[in-house]
Amino acid sequence: MENRNAMELFKARWAEGKFVCVGLDSEYAKLPESVKASGNVGEAIITFNKAIVDATKDLVCAYKPNSAFYEAQGPVGLLALKATVEYINQVAPGVPVILDAKRADIGNTNNGYVTFAFDWLGVDAITVHPYLGKEALKPFLDRVDKMIIVLARTSNPGAGEFQDLKVDGTPMYQIVAKQVATQWNTNGNCAVVAGATYPEELGEIRKLVGDLPLLIPGIGKQGGDLEKAVHNGRDSRKQGMIINNSSGVLFASMGPDFAQAAQAVAQKMHNDITIFNQQ
Amino acid sequence: MENRNAMELFKARWAEGKFVCVGLDSEYAKLPESVKASGNVGEAIITFNKAIVDATKDLVCAYKPNSAFYEAQGPVGLLALKATVEYINQVAPGVPVILDAKRADIGNTNNGYVTFAFDWLGVDAITVHPYLGKEALKPFLDRVDKMIIVLARTSNPGAGEFQDLKVDGTPMYQIVAKQVATQWNTNGNCAVVAGATYPEELGEIRKLVGDLPLLIPGIGKQGGDLEKAVHNGRDSRKQGMIINNSSGVLFASMGPDFAQAAQAVAQKMHNDITIFNQQ
Repeated sequence: MENRNAMELFKARWAEGKFVCVGLDSEYAKLPESVKASGNVGEAIITFNKAIVDATKDLVCAYKPNSAFYEAQGPVGLLALKATVEYINQVAPGVPVILDAKRADIGNTNNGYVTFAFDWLGVDAITVHPYLGKEALKPFLDRVDKMIIVLARTSNPGAGEFQDLKVDGTPMYQIVAKQVATQWNTNGNCAVVAGATYPEELGEIRKLVGDLPLLIPGIGKQGGDLEKAVHNGRDSRKQGMIINNSSGVLFASMGPDFAQAAQAVAQKMHNDITIFNQQ
Repeated sequence: MENRNAMELFKARWAEGKFVCVGLDSEYAKLPESVKASGNVGEAIITFNKAIVDATKDLVCAYKPNSAFYEAQGPVGLLALKATVEYINQVAPGVPVILDAKRADIGNTNNGYVTFAFDWLGVDAITVHPYLGKEALKPFLDRVDKMIIVLARTSNPGAGEFQDLKVDGTPMYQIVAKQVATQWNTNGNCAVVAGATYPEELGEIRKLVGDLPLLIPGIGKQGGDLEKAVHNGRDSRKQGMIINNSSGVLFASMGPDFAQAAQAVAQKMHNDITIFNQQ
């Protein structure tokens, strides 16, 4: 895994016209019965993820496991997560892995999270909260070969409680996005989160951040509009988008055909993005 | 561990005049050589934490392990963390444990963190980021027997980047603190973080939140002023403070006398708080 650079991996996938990110939110309780019957908790999660990866790896620009679903299982979950990252690196070495962990602590403490995510798990990117500021996040930002994806406008219904508050007329989420693009990105390794469930805010963010990559969650069960996500989220080269769908892909079918169903959803999403991006 | 209620545990400790929180930031690389020589990574962390707990348990209102230092070791670290929580519950059942994890994701995803912290680890309280809003944090807030501690003003040098930005003249950290006190605390299980490194901001927060408990980090190596922390942080009953010291206690000595040295620092901190709180 030496000489692996997250931004270069993303750029290579985007150059191939791939913008779909599959969110590996593989909550054990939600796995198909056929998968659960195949082994213990850890084995079932790994079996499920491998099948999803096999079915979608030629369609995606990234995978994004959310740490919460793995941590819920304790050490067994962490080991399943590590095995999943290793499997992706093996069968799809060109596809970067984002740990959706939404971490952020004060300076030195972040070294622990950096070690966990980048050294122990070996992921290429991580999501972080902005609230403690750039100074606190230095241990993340210093990892030049990794991508640090900062929450700006999240996809949840209550996102606006603080994110919409205006500072001298400018909403907080825009201040965060602009600060990341202009002040935090010294190493050229930053990106921001902008939910597809708020297409207007997504568009405002794109205007502010230039060609900074955007992680765009909220497609699928959350109901985000894919066409607007593409039109408002793409950069000046019609690239720079990481458009995530988690449950919509993973749980497209609860039967033994779950991987085929996942592939069909990912394929349709890929096709739709391709069409929307030509418009 | 049934019928355990975090707020009641804290109130009982405060009624005894105990406000010191020992931050179990037990980074393996920093452990005394004598401890490292005693076993493998997991065993060494557990041995160290047990000795610190034995030496300080009669002086404290809480323990606060920071998840980052344990996650850095992978599953071994998580198991050491769980063993530490179990040991505290065994030898000091009246002392609540705060998982300093600074988590926060969108709604359902937080269930994974809730399961990890409260069900798998069995801690009494957790720290969370405010940025996604109350709606997202519902799975935490719904746990009425646990304490949900929301970051308002953090102790790091760069905390002001977003926390000091003014919305209609009011700094963001005050808006967060007030929102938690007045809107999020429906179940009476909230608290906020206010760093001792910013005594004025701590005082402003206290004025805004009434008798809501405050977790006050920043004493010890971070250089916060203990006297000001007490005078600006206490509630109307001279209680409601969780004053944390991590490295200052844990690493007071790197020799085989580390536990005695930790006890001495915790004892002095306890004595100082008692004196300051009489003034």
